[in-house]
Amino acid sequence: MRPVCVLGLGLIGGSVLRAADAAGYPVWGATESALDADAARAEGFSVEPSVADAVRRAASTDALVVLAVPLPAVEPVLREIAALAPECRLTDVVSVKGPVVDAVSRLLPRARYAGGHPMAGLSASGWAASDAELFQDAAWVVTADVEESEEDGAVSATDPTLWREVARLALDCGGQVVPATAAEHDAAVARVSHLPHMMAAVLAAVGADGGPLALTLGAGSFRDGTRVMASRPELVRAMCEGNRQALLDAVDDALGRLGAARGALASTGSVAATVQAGHSARLAWERLTGPREEGVTEVPVTNLARLVALGRAGGRVIDLTDRTAMVRMPQPPSSASGV
Amino acid sequence: MRPVCVLGLGLIGGSVLRAADAAGYPVWGATESALDADAARAEGFSVEPSVADAVRRAASTDALVVLAVPLPAVEPVLREIAALAPECRLTDVVSVKGPVVDAVSRLLPRARYAGGHPMAGLSASGWAASDAELFQDAAWVVTADVEESEEDGAVSATDPTLWREVARLALDCGGQVVPATAAEHDAAVARVSHLPHMMAAVLAAVGADGGPLALTLGAGSFRDGTRVMASRPELVRAMCEGNRQALLDAVDDALGRLGAARGALASTGSVAATVQAGHSARLAWERLTGPREEGVTEVPVTNLARLVALGRAGGRVIDLTDRTAMVRMPQPPSSASGV
Repeated sequence: MRPVCVLGLGLIGGSVLRAADAAGYPVWGATESALDADAARAEGFSVEPSVADAVRRAASTDALVVLAVPLPAVEPVLREIAALAPECRLTDVVSVKGPVVDAVSRLLPRARYAGGHPMAGLSASGWAASDAELFQDAAWVVTADVEESEEDGAVSATDPTLWREVARLALDCGGQVVPATAAEHDAAVARVSHLPHMMAAVLAAVGADGGPLALTLGAGSFRDGTRVMASRPELVRAMCEGNRQALLDAVDDALGRLGAARGALASTGSVAATVQAGHSARLAWERLTGPREEGVTEVPVTNLARLVALGRAGGRVIDLTDRTAMVRMPQPPSSASGV
Repeated sequence: MRPVCVLGLGLIGGSVLRAADAAGYPVWGATESALDADAARAEGFSVEPSVADAVRRAASTDALVVLAVPLPAVEPVLREIAALAPECRLTDVVSVKGPVVDAVSRLLPRARYAGGHPMAGLSASGWAASDAELFQDAAWVVTADVEESEEDGAVSATDPTLWREVARLALDCGGQVVPATAAEHDAAVARVSHLPHMMAAVLAAVGADGGPLALTLGAGSFRDGTRVMASRPELVRAMCEGNRQALLDAVDDALGRLGAARGALASTGSVAATVQAGHSARLAWERLTGPREEGVTEVPVTNLARLVALGRAGGRVIDLTDRTAMVRMPQPPSSASGV
């Protein structure tokens, strides 16, 4: 198995190191955090003294490098990689893909790269919170740079061999691979990951505006609706601000829908349309993330455009051979649920 | 112990019946749902054939009647009570207090009444979801009708003896009693209970607007932020629409804060103010609902105005003697947390 070099050993990077190790990959890491480095070493993991050392070792072994640092640290680390391993195999686990793709194109044009994003938790952080099981059955986006005009064919700017290696690692870490373009990924996570943080921040603040009586009455709906605000503010900011344009679109949609609910409540006293849409959407989410169809669609790994199209329809790659991806689609809506 | 008659045997009413029974109260119930009635009887609970039968039994035993029906059913049931037990002892567990207080004043002017609202879950519903432990350590508002101008004294329109009985039942069911006026309760729950449902509905719909790719990527933050949308839409509607004016105020605050976040993101690229406010508010909520001060403040139960003032500051009644309420206050903000 090709070695894996993980740069950044926080919650996600640490969990990748653990999960890849458990899957049998030769692994090592590096981190700027002496605390995380010491903790990982104490558990017997190989942690290089510096990012440069880890990257040199990756260059000499043709390892797959996993970039697992917060977005603001991506460019400095890419510069280090460019100096030491300009043709490396590279993926990342950063929550926004557009800025990373851009930076890789600029700083590491000869790298073989496919972006990644495992959809896993954030409230806790650091190596101490990392877990080899964190990605079990989680969606893990692996990006493919596919031109719209090429979607009928199999032409792609992403190297399918590298894409397959990254997808293999994601599967071996317990994830289910969702193929997507970087732009579609960013638009999607703006809606289901970054907007939830904005909504949670607003909800928490409106609750606090009600004073101690309101806060002491906050129970299940308030607890769950504000949970992610327990996260470190700088991580939430980096994630949301790094996806600015897509998040603006999502916030505008939310403002429009909340304004419509306000208007209906004020004028007719009813929030039926808002609540029904929310209920149907939640049921649709439960279907998309619940049990899947029995069969699989087999797609040649060289046909990344087809894989991206299936990802757009909710498909997930659940297994890979050397040449073929096995895609499992969501169950169709039942007529009873109405979604 | 005074008998307890529970009208409505859904999640909350059923849980009150179970918890009061477990605490040793003689209990019986009634419900329009044959399903819930049969299920409760099958577990050995006394369920009268009709609301009228249950109310007649309450009149003949001077029981405390607990109204546990959805808001739209409150008036019809109050009319039945008015015909059979016009001077009964009455409380309710409806999630909005203003409309219930108004209806009781109109339809049952001679009843001894204090409103109640246990802050407990909603996603599941019906007797099948009820649980004697549902209220364990939960906030349970018991309303006191206190005129602002009378707050320095002990004058109150709510009978303190009846208030104490209702608070005793709430404590015996496992809850912690939060004294509040009906209006303050409604303003508070608009922010921490009804607004979370509106935000969850909007968030779910914006996610679904992103199509199957967005929904399949929805993980922790989306799951928690939309959880309450799995609830039955008619229950969510009844709750939110019944608190129209206070909810409008809360929605306006949310629109203002979300619009400000949008403006900052568009103009400066930063959501620092929004995220920091949300983080501080979440920490404040954790403090208000977390471990409390060691000591208690003893307040005569006749001084409902003082109890309401302590409730406004986040206090909870954790025990009662015949004459005295023991109020435990939240811990003060630590200088480290900055909230």
